[in-house]
Amino acid sequence: MKRHKFVKLMLKRANGKPATRGEAFAPANIALCKYWGKRDADLNLPVNSSLSISLGKLGTKTVVKFAKTADRVFLNGKPAPKDFADRISKYLDLFRADGQFFEVRTKNNIPTAAGLASSASGFAALVKALDQLLGWGFNPRELSMLARLGSGSATRSLYEGFAVWHAGVRADGMDSYAESFSNAWKDLRVGILEVSNVRKKTGSTDGMNRTVETSELYEAWPAQADCDFDELRTAVAAQDFTLLGETAENNALAMHATMLAAWPPLCYWKPQTLALMQKVWQARENGLELYFTIDAGPNLKLLFLKENQAAVKKLFPKVQIVNPFSS
Amino acid sequence: MKRHKFVKLMLKRANGKPATRGEAFAPANIALCKYWGKRDADLNLPVNSSLSISLGKLGTKTVVKFAKTADRVFLNGKPAPKDFADRISKYLDLFRADGQFFEVRTKNNIPTAAGLASSASGFAALVKALDQLLGWGFNPRELSMLARLGSGSATRSLYEGFAVWHAGVRADGMDSYAESFSNAWKDLRVGILEVSNVRKKTGSTDGMNRTVETSELYEAWPAQADCDFDELRTAVAAQDFTLLGETAENNALAMHATMLAAWPPLCYWKPQTLALMQKVWQARENGLELYFTIDAGPNLKLLFLKENQAAVKKLFPKVQIVNPFSS
Repeated sequence: MKRHKFVKLMLKRANGKPATRGEAFAPANIALCKYWGKRDADLNLPVNSSLSISLGKLGTKTVVKFAKTADRVFLNGKPAPKDFADRISKYLDLFRADGQFFEVRTKNNIPTAAGLASSASGFAALVKALDQLLGWGFNPRELSMLARLGSGSATRSLYEGFAVWHAGVRADGMDSYAESFSNAWKDLRVGILEVSNVRKKTGSTDGMNRTVETSELYEAWPAQADCDFDELRTAVAAQDFTLLGETAENNALAMHATMLAAWPPLCYWKPQTLALMQKVWQARENGLELYFTIDAGPNLKLLFLKENQAAVKKLFPKVQIVNPFSS
Repeated sequence: MKRHKFVKLMLKRANGKPATRGEAFAPANIALCKYWGKRDADLNLPVNSSLSISLGKLGTKTVVKFAKTADRVFLNGKPAPKDFADRISKYLDLFRADGQFFEVRTKNNIPTAAGLASSASGFAALVKALDQLLGWGFNPRELSMLARLGSGSATRSLYEGFAVWHAGVRADGMDSYAESFSNAWKDLRVGILEVSNVRKKTGSTDGMNRTVETSELYEAWPAQADCDFDELRTAVAAQDFTLLGETAENNALAMHATMLAAWPPLCYWKPQTLALMQKVWQARENGLELYFTIDAGPNLKLLFLKENQAAVKKLFPKVQIVNPFSS
């Protein structure tokens, strides 16, 4: 019921007119300071603030229309798997009028559920498309709060470039939104190293909950995250790459460390993930300024500057390089 | 200087007569609640109490005699490598009279520096042999305090079976000793899975110091260790294998988690280590009661009961099974 109350509060702000269709794109985002732990599970309110970089053209494009007798959900041109369609319908329940149904056509150009946050870009694109269809006329901040109800990390996918998601302190979540942060960082590159695109056994929410409930080390996480969030804002504002890379890698490893200390132990890595991490550490010892971050999945995301692109490509021939600020 | 003061205090308690030779065996030990972090680096005083199981006949045998003009150190029948011999001589400096030299012949039946704590059994055997040679007449508790100066985990290698090492609170370390704990647990088995016997790049002391100094998550370690130490004493006293296994595995993973969150990140695992851990987790999901612990190295130590020995052997054909209580 909390969710419905929140949506009611939000919809009071709506001021536009419905249309016959909505269409929107939202980018995937990679958290440099991770969202890990909920202070309210129902409203997806986080324990700590987080900061991300969006992946430019990698993301989700969604078209929404009204449907006649039932929701119809398509993923990459085909009827969506049941669990996917059910999750969308459940989200649409928040907004639908009596007897109202939707047709949702969504396309990802990134692998689904491989720790590449397709649910983030998915819910952000959906909420932007719904804004047009239902004529809400919301600003990105308001849309970010509605996207949050679909998936926490979707809160940050409303923006290109860097985004910060403020944890907020209010119980009703009205101060837990994301906003754009700082300017373009033309030379920053993200490299995606896919280890597996198999759907993970333990979803992020379950992983998060198990960690918060059973990991003694999680006690130390909120303080670390707060500190990393501040450091990363400093690093982004000053375009200090060393500070950015060190803080992001340490933050990701600390998050995974809290999971290892959970019971039963939780580890999203595959042996190959660890081999790649060790390759990054070795490269750094050899003088290459290269860092990684990793979400609740087995894939690594490298962070480096344009000047080292060739060296990174040589070390990791399969890396998929993203320029977050290419137009 | 603190060390010499400590030894002076100790030697005041000596009451026997010198001999012409000393010979002793000490077992390797595997910590179920780990020693991780020093409150005093000079005296090897730990942040937290720890609990271990000794490995029966696996360990170190050492013979000590007087030598004429210089120390002579032999390892497994050959002149010892320089760093090994230097570490022994530096330790002997604590006890030697003016112009006194020693011949030390030490034999391990476990791999050296592969995370199988040969320095623990090594210093424990050496101090027991010195006790005979120099005629101290110390009891095991006193010897454990002297062994501590050589290597923290050596404190626990004075005993067969379970040992507890009390962290103590005194600045002079006179209450930081180990003692034997509880009875034999006839059905308990330890399985050693060697991944690598290459000397590790970062020694335990360096790893510990880096973690204490840079890992935010280490803040939560002392409380976890205290709690695990109590749980493990309960588990051992009641021979509650589930409590023993869960607590030991969680404690080891939490220790490694504090290292991952250090900077630069510290990970003693190899990809193969992670593959073995995941195999244990899978076996447990399939109903086999099997746990592991892991020290600052890449090798896994399995914990299981005699009744599951065949199943474990089938899953891990290369496992080296130890019965800690075989006579």
